[in-house]
Amino acid sequence: MDIIKLGIIGGGRIGKLHAENILYRCPQFKLWAISDPYPDLDWLSKHDLKFHSTIDDLLADKNIDAVLICSPSMLHADHIIRAALANKHIFCEKPVGLNESEIIEAIHVLQDSSLVAQVGFNRRFDPNVQDIHRQCQQHLQSPHMIKITSRDPEPPKESYIKHSGGIFIDMSIHDFDMARFLSGAEVCEVMAIGAVNIDPIFERYDDFDTAVIQLKFTNGAIGVIDNSRRACYGYDQRVEVYNHRGTLISANVPRHNIQRQDQEHCESAKPVYFFLERYKQAFIAQLDAFHHSISEQKIASVSLYDGLQAVRIAIAAKRSAREKTPIKISTTI
Amino acid sequence: MDIIKLGIIGGGRIGKLHAENILYRCPQFKLWAISDPYPDLDWLSKHDLKFHSTIDDLLADKNIDAVLICSPSMLHADHIIRAALANKHIFCEKPVGLNESEIIEAIHVLQDSSLVAQVGFNRRFDPNVQDIHRQCQQHLQSPHMIKITSRDPEPPKESYIKHSGGIFIDMSIHDFDMARFLSGAEVCEVMAIGAVNIDPIFERYDDFDTAVIQLKFTNGAIGVIDNSRRACYGYDQRVEVYNHRGTLISANVPRHNIQRQDQEHCESAKPVYFFLERYKQAFIAQLDAFHHSISEQKIASVSLYDGLQAVRIAIAAKRSAREKTPIKISTTI
Amino acid sequence: MDIIKLGIIGGGRIGKLHAENILYRCPQFKLWAISDPYPDLDWLSKHDLKFHSTIDDLLADKNIDAVLICSPSMLHADHIIRAALANKHIFCEKPVGLNESEIIEAIHVLQDSSLVAQVGFNRRFDPNVQDIHRQCQQHLQSPHMIKITSRDPEPPKESYIKHSGGIFIDMSIHDFDMARFLSGAEVCEVMAIGAVNIDPIFERYDDFDTAVIQLKFTNGAIGVIDNSRRACYGYDQRVEVYNHRGTLISANVPRHNIQRQDQEHCESAKPVYFFLERYKQAFIAQLDAFHHSISEQKIASVSLYDGLQAVRIAIAAKRSAREKTPIKISTTI
Amino acid sequence: MDIIKLGIIGGGRIGKLHAENILYRCPQFKLWAISDPYPDLDWLSKHDLKFHSTIDDLLADKNIDAVLICSPSMLHADHIIRAALANKHIFCEKPVGLNESEIIEAIHVLQDSSLVAQVGFNRRFDPNVQDIHRQCQQHLQSPHMIKITSRDPEPPKESYIKHSGGIFIDMSIHDFDMARFLSGAEVCEVMAIGAVNIDPIFERYDDFDTAVIQLKFTNGAIGVIDNSRRACYGYDQRVEVYNHRGTLISANVPRHNIQRQDQEHCESAKPVYFFLERYKQAFIAQLDAFHHSISEQKIASVSLYDGLQAVRIAIAAKRSAREKTPIKISTTI
Repeated sequence: MDIIKLGIIGGGRIGKLHAENILYRCPQFKLWAISDPYPDLDWLSKHDLKFHSTIDDLLADKNIDAVLICSPSMLHADHIIRAALANKHIFCEKPVGLNESEIIEAIHVLQDSSLVAQVGFNRRFDPNVQDIHRQCQQHLQSPHMIKITSRDPEPPKESYIKHSGGIFIDMSIHDFDMARFLSGAEVCEVMAIGAVNIDPIFERYDDFDTAVIQLKFTNGAIGVIDNSRRACYGYDQRVEVYNHRGTLISANVPRHNIQRQDQEHCESAKPVYFFLERYKQAFIAQLDAFHHSISEQKIASVSLYDGLQAVRIAIAAKRSAREKTPIKISTTI
Repeated sequence: MDIIKLGIIGGGRIGKLHAENILYRCPQFKLWAISDPYPDLDWLSKHDLKFHSTIDDLLADKNIDAVLICSPSMLHADHIIRAALANKHIFCEKPVGLNESEIIEAIHVLQDSSLVAQVGFNRRFDPNVQDIHRQCQQHLQSPHMIKITSRDPEPPKESYIKHSGGIFIDMSIHDFDMARFLSGAEVCEVMAIGAVNIDPIFERYDDFDTAVIQLKFTNGAIGVIDNSRRACYGYDQRVEVYNHRGTLISANVPRHNIQRQDQEHCESAKPVYFFLERYKQAFIAQLDAFHHSISEQKIASVSLYDGLQAVRIAIAAKRSAREKTPIKISTTI
Repeated sequence: MDIIKLGIIGGGRIGKLHAENILYRCPQFKLWAISDPYPDLDWLSKHDLKFHSTIDDLLADKNIDAVLICSPSMLHADHIIRAALANKHIFCEKPVGLNESEIIEAIHVLQDSSLVAQVGFNRRFDPNVQDIHRQCQQHLQSPHMIKITSRDPEPPKESYIKHSGGIFIDMSIHDFDMARFLSGAEVCEVMAIGAVNIDPIFERYDDFDTAVIQLKFTNGAIGVIDNSRRACYGYDQRVEVYNHRGTLISANVPRHNIQRQDQEHCESAKPVYFFLERYKQAFIAQLDAFHHSISEQKIASVSLYDGLQAVRIAIAAKRSAREKTPIKISTTI
Repeated sequence: MDIIKLGIIGGGRIGKLHAENILYRCPQFKLWAISDPYPDLDWLSKHDLKFHSTIDDLLADKNIDAVLICSPSMLHADHIIRAALANKHIFCEKPVGLNESEIIEAIHVLQDSSLVAQVGFNRRFDPNVQDIHRQCQQHLQSPHMIKITSRDPEPPKESYIKHSGGIFIDMSIHDFDMARFLSGAEVCEVMAIGAVNIDPIFERYDDFDTAVIQLKFTNGAIGVIDNSRRACYGYDQRVEVYNHRGTLISANVPRHNIQRQDQEHCESAKPVYFFLERYKQAFIAQLDAFHHSISEQKIASVSLYDGLQAVRIAIAAKRSAREKTPIKISTTI
């Protein structure tokens, strides 16, 4: 197994998360350097990490084989293109861009390249999602219905909401990718309803904290996603895939397996708290897949096209919720 | 406890079901007579039942205090009006009519009367539904989201499909009533998607076998219902009610509580087969409630207005699925 | 279907329970008369029941085909013999006697008779027990281990404890019969531990409120039963049957199927409260079986020998707990 | 946090397991050297590990702060004593010895020392066991009953059976420690039944493959353990703790959380396969605890006395099964 040398572009929350996983959990990678315009020097020195103040310096480093793009979303597409021109394999966090045209441009740049370009839809690598996907292919084949519940335990801070792009592009985008992954088909139409039930702060940013989204797929299947920014009982991540051959239900992962029964209660564990706990293994497994694609010269397991379609559905959902009408989705580049 | 004397209008499948429940499970009623133009004489004699060939004869019978209307749906509204004019308390099967105007006319006839007029939305009386309703009022109050899964184990015969009025008025109508019951609010808009995934026969009657329906409620809540005519694993009847205070999930009722684990399987019981098993207690409990309303001179626990709204939502859902656009629902009479 | 006319000997709690089931749930029986030295006249008149002050009068009534023996336990064996001599079919509550010799005498009296004599081990007729028994025969065949948890929700009153015969003969006896039923083998040795953990009142009567009992079966299987007089969370009735082919686990029956998740709890329903709720269907099903044996001239589905063995194990368990040593069980008459 | 330098005595299966955990999962330890008379040189070189051919060389190494004793069981007590004399902190695999006297001698040697000596009862550190222990202390306090099911997925090879010491000392010993841990009391009597149901090979070594063990505790509580060498559905590890305040049930950990319902099945995941998967986290957590005890100068979280009592119960269980009589357990040193 060849050790692949990595650079990380962006040392914020998600950049640090990947860095620590690579340092302590992924012996097949070597973390070579991080670039960030405002680096967290304490954290860098604690983990004994090399640092570049610009992305250009990092991309110029000949030792680096591949980069993880963890910069702000509006820079993703540009950073993909620059990394490609510097001949680095690319792992880019979601969303892969904020509008169709910049993502399509990035796709064109990568088009004839042999570089791996993978998008960070980590949930596809969760053991339960992998299992429901496998069972779906084996027992159900083409689903008639895909139902996804995805609710966060608590709303983000106002500063985050402000720049999040809204619930559909920030939160539902994972569910749109999951729906495509599990259906094996393309979403061709979306009808979204949004509401502000949790905190009026969302109204200030023309955003919603509650959403229900209907999807139509090219093969006639129907999808339905429900999202909330506030599930007081924990991170609610359930999936159901159904057709005439049966149904597959992925339940939440409980914090423990103890049941207590007493005079007042019959009590089980709540779901694990949030995405760091719930998708801990998935964060590592997606890097394993990235390594595998590079070392085996295979195409990325989650492509830029996958990234594009999720963004298209998210943008359409936002428009649908505002215009209160179904919106069609393009599936061509 | 006063014994109430009942007449049943219509001796078909549902009329017989009620008749046998009244004879053997509801000592507080006496089944006095049944009217049907084409009576099942064997069944009538086996249970030693009095029979009228016309509804007029039955309504003219002074001994009868109340009637159960189990005639074909297109006659329901007319039969309600005739029973009201004959001064009988009324229990009418769903749907209470096939269009708004005839139901509104029936409501007007009953308007100043002291007669009880109850609609047969039996699921409201199911012990699990009663419990989720009670817990919702106690712990959640006003829900943000109501999710209902309602799937039949197998499609009906072609002869039934032909006259069913379509999936929304035949099947989803129960879910529309459930959504109103659990939300404590009115549905003001519906957006339905239909598909034919199970059997092309449904296309012949301009009907669907699969449906996903979004609902908007007057209080900002959102509902989502999914229906299928074919859940090969049994009758799938799940409900979830959610808001920022928590979530309530009503699971299916399994056939037994045995789990078997062996080399290949870890296996539990499938849900009970169909509505006769699943809502066995509910069929009796709704008659108990009817008796209670009459003997205590209370209003019906499920009113003609409830019947009207469910029909309005069903008609709007049908239109929405065809026109592929959200449809608003009136909540006035 | 022939209507069988029944007399009930003993109009106490269990006699009344059977009487009401027969009156309102078992149309294939007619309740002809009840005998009791201290009859509850209000209850008798409310249900319009004929009454005899002595068992002799009842047994002399030629209309009566069969009797339910619901008298105090110390009279059971004698009443079986008298009923047999009066040529009545017999259903006798458990325990069928308080010592081996009187039960063996009753068995001898019935020996060459064509009368049906069934013992009231109602649990065998519970749908879950029926299902685990059926699955055991189909999938496991001969079990290696049988585990039974049987805990009452609250201890009986002192007046009951006083005459109960102790935890093994009053409570564990059902579990001993269940162990025999599910294993398909005979218990040949018992080692019981008793403790007083709930209420010191049990010590006053040389009784226990907590017990763990090991059983050895003739075929090498091992059984383990745990009993408590006080499960504050409800009636705990679990069974497991295990061998190298797999395991079958019968879980408790919950009061409803609603799960509530909120900030503090993830809560399900407690088990149904006590035997009246838990074994409601079983009480009726055992009478159906009694009717079936009589009308089809079959042997009883639970025989006097089954009653004898359960008593023998109970008596041995009591001795084992006192003498702190394993006790062997005879399996011959 | 100080890095603690470790030596491992014995490079067999369990020694390697600890070594790899320390190398890749426990940054607070440095693995300094391994001793083994027949070292696996490939494995050592792959992980770039230093090696001593004798325990004396290893113990003479001044760099080493602490040792993990992973040698054959009959050497454990001797190795503890030698490590203590070399002034190394000690982590010793179970069983801590094969007879009482050698363990008591080791305890005496360590008696006035400030060295940490921890026994490898890893299950105490499993998150579910930790949680049931915590909930027991918080909600139940002193249990009346402790029930443990512990069944292996398949029997070991004959070569292992031969030297295992028998089911009670090889397998049940974990359950004896768990019973003491959860009860907060000492076991004072044991009554064991053994059987050979799985494979006649066990008879050849005077061993059992199936066992049920009753325990009496000093505080009046009762324990019951059932063991089997062959649970075809996976590693069965369930625990229940009960008293009048309620019950706590620790269920198996499933391989995934997907439920599939189809025409024939309603199927969930089997338990995780065996101890490596089930107690993965526990193996690491016990080393974290060992580090904590050393660096904080605290006593070991699982003491040599705990090791002694588990062995005493195991030896008594073996005798009880042979002599078919209850055996008392000493709780003094």
